[in-house]
Amino acid sequence: MKSMNDSLDVSRVASILAALGKRRPRVHCLTNTVAQNLTANMLLACGAIPSMASHPDEVGAVAAGAGAILINLGTISPEGERAVPKLLAVVRERGMPLVLDPVFVELSPLRLRLAEAVLGQPGVTVRGNAAEMAALAGVMSEARGVLRVTTGKVDRIEDKTCVFTVAHGHEWMARVTGLGCASSALIAACRAVEPDAAVAAAAALTAYGIAGEIAAERAAGPGSFAMHLIDALAGLDEATLAARMGAVS
Amino acid sequence: MKSMNDSLDVSRVASILAALGKRRPRVHCLTNTVAQNLTANMLLACGAIPSMASHPDEVGAVAAGAGAILINLGTISPEGERAVPKLLAVVRERGMPLVLDPVFVELSPLRLRLAEAVLGQPGVTVRGNAAEMAALAGVMSEARGVLRVTTGKVDRIEDKTCVFTVAHGHEWMARVTGLGCASSALIAACRAVEPDAAVAAAAALTAYGIAGEIAAERAAGPGSFAMHLIDALAGLDEATLAARMGAVS
Amino acid sequence: MKSMNDSLDVSRVASILAALGKRRPRVHCLTNTVAQNLTANMLLACGAIPSMASHPDEVGAVAAGAGAILINLGTISPEGERAVPKLLAVVRERGMPLVLDPVFVELSPLRLRLAEAVLGQPGVTVRGNAAEMAALAGVMSEARGVLRVTTGKVDRIEDKTCVFTVAHGHEWMARVTGLGCASSALIAACRAVEPDAAVAAAAALTAYGIAGEIAAERAAGPGSFAMHLIDALAGLDEATLAARMGAVS
Repeated sequence: MKSMNDSLDVSRVASILAALGKRRPRVHCLTNTVAQNLTANMLLACGAIPSMASHPDEVGAVAAGAGAILINLGTISPEGERAVPKLLAVVRERGMPLVLDPVFVELSPLRLRLAEAVLGQPGVTVRGNAAEMAALAGVMSEARGVLRVTTGKVDRIEDKTCVFTVAHGHEWMARVTGLGCASSALIAACRAVEPDAAVAAAAALTAYGIAGEIAAERAAGPGSFAMHLIDALAGLDEATLAARMGAVS
Repeated sequence: MKSMNDSLDVSRVASILAALGKRRPRVHCLTNTVAQNLTANMLLACGAIPSMASHPDEVGAVAAGAGAILINLGTISPEGERAVPKLLAVVRERGMPLVLDPVFVELSPLRLRLAEAVLGQPGVTVRGNAAEMAALAGVMSEARGVLRVTTGKVDRIEDKTCVFTVAHGHEWMARVTGLGCASSALIAACRAVEPDAAVAAAAALTAYGIAGEIAAERAAGPGSFAMHLIDALAGLDEATLAARMGAVS
Repeated sequence: MKSMNDSLDVSRVASILAALGKRRPRVHCLTNTVAQNLTANMLLACGAIPSMASHPDEVGAVAAGAGAILINLGTISPEGERAVPKLLAVVRERGMPLVLDPVFVELSPLRLRLAEAVLGQPGVTVRGNAAEMAALAGVMSEARGVLRVTTGKVDRIEDKTCVFTVAHGHEWMARVTGLGCASSALIAACRAVEPDAAVAAAAALTAYGIAGEIAAERAAGPGSFAMHLIDALAGLDEATLAARMGAVS
């Protein structure tokens, strides 16, 4: 198996971030209304372009030109529920990368059913916390080519051929709403410019975690943390990555 | 009648905040899309866990494990309208505390009708500004065991047996969207760990108002105010409460 | 043709901002869920009052007492789609000013159809970026009394009788979600207190752009930029306007 230190060095993360800034992929996000603003700002900070249409009559047309799609099940609405198959059709027709964020799937049979529908699509990246990933373990074991990204104190990224771990971040990241959701969008953005889904996810979470470490040094509490994280992500350069990635490996 | 100075001392407020941080109750919020993010972050800053599902097919399942429910009528949608009776069923079946925030009820016959439905439930806490509470006065006078929380320059908390007043806060709190809505969520969180609804509301508004005073000293305007309020709330300790509560009593 | 320097001097902008703070018009915003919070805070920072109901059964009643209406097509929902004709009825019945923000109209046939319906109303102000305005050029050429506001590095405000240009702002304004949407709301607010639609738009964008310049001097990146912009807008006085407007004319 590959490990992060074997394959994901500083220059690889930096080149993926540089590609985001240069190619500026659009990421279509069907995401919850709590995290929409933060998610859009996080994407913009990295150079990606957010779009967030959810109306079933337009979501296919709007998503068609994107570079990747995120489906996040938080605050799923009846219209969002009807948008899911439209987005899956775009994924199939265009071979577009797809990331699933199964927010609170352990609490809702509706979300479990929608997650199952999404995972009928091969090659999905799923990003969730331990409880969410546990609730989906059975479904994911039958899904083709799924990449499982479990975030927490140490993030674990794994499919049948590799495991990466990322040990960056700060405890306040669990005290600010939407930061997990926004990390899923960042994974989708990196996937739009990087064909290897595991590398894309590892690069996204490395950059995100390092920005979180910088933010924790600047913030006075969880209220100011997200703002500093966005500022740090927008200003992340290879020297900073090198200093921080060296420090934990 | 009880007054705040008789029954709500510093140690009572501090112990309710400590219980929030220790027990970490989940508060299910059916709330408006303008205030969702701020509300979630305010709850997290105090140690509570937000959940915000509104889809009628899942809202009952998601809310069932919460410690309290908030129904806020701002930006109520047709799906939110259908979620209200589902949440009232959870309240009845589980004896769960319920807080109503009747945003702009004075402008909308639809919201008035929904508020009446909510107030058919006994023991509801209602938090609104003077105009909202005036519009609901008739409905509340017929509701069983309602606790009326009118916020403004001085907050007034009253039921048939007691009146508390809370004179904390800052004028900028009326210049930042969602701060009133978030205070209702904090009242719900405190109610999840404190059986006396009036004490829970008084503790929540005391902590919130004091955090607002601290934020006003740190902020450069209404744009930075909310962030500082969340930071202050997350860092509120008994010494700070004592210094501030003493100063106004 | 009039130019900005002929007709929009510092005292005119200052008097429109002063009227906002004194008369505190309510602006009813049917707007996207990504930008709602920022839009509301931007309005409050200037003294205006936001309302954001979108339920078709209440939107007419809530909007009826407003001073202006904004229709923003971002994240339009089926319920928002049904709210549009209700708002157009309020505009017709009460002669209320109307601003359209055609977010991503170039990507969505649904939004194009809705924009056409809105532009059936005479006297609409349309605020968009170059791509959005280009997609609507044909529709706008047939609309009666439309004011076209194209924002970018230099904002251009034009109808059949005049052209204003505004050259304020900062590149980060394109890196923060919702800032364009919020500028449309500010145009609506100024229109509520200023009968000349072109002057209202020019005053709003001048104040907004100057607040953006101040924010850029204070912010450490796009994450902290919006907060500083709101603070700057709330504190904008005639002396600051004079110093900044003089500097670019």
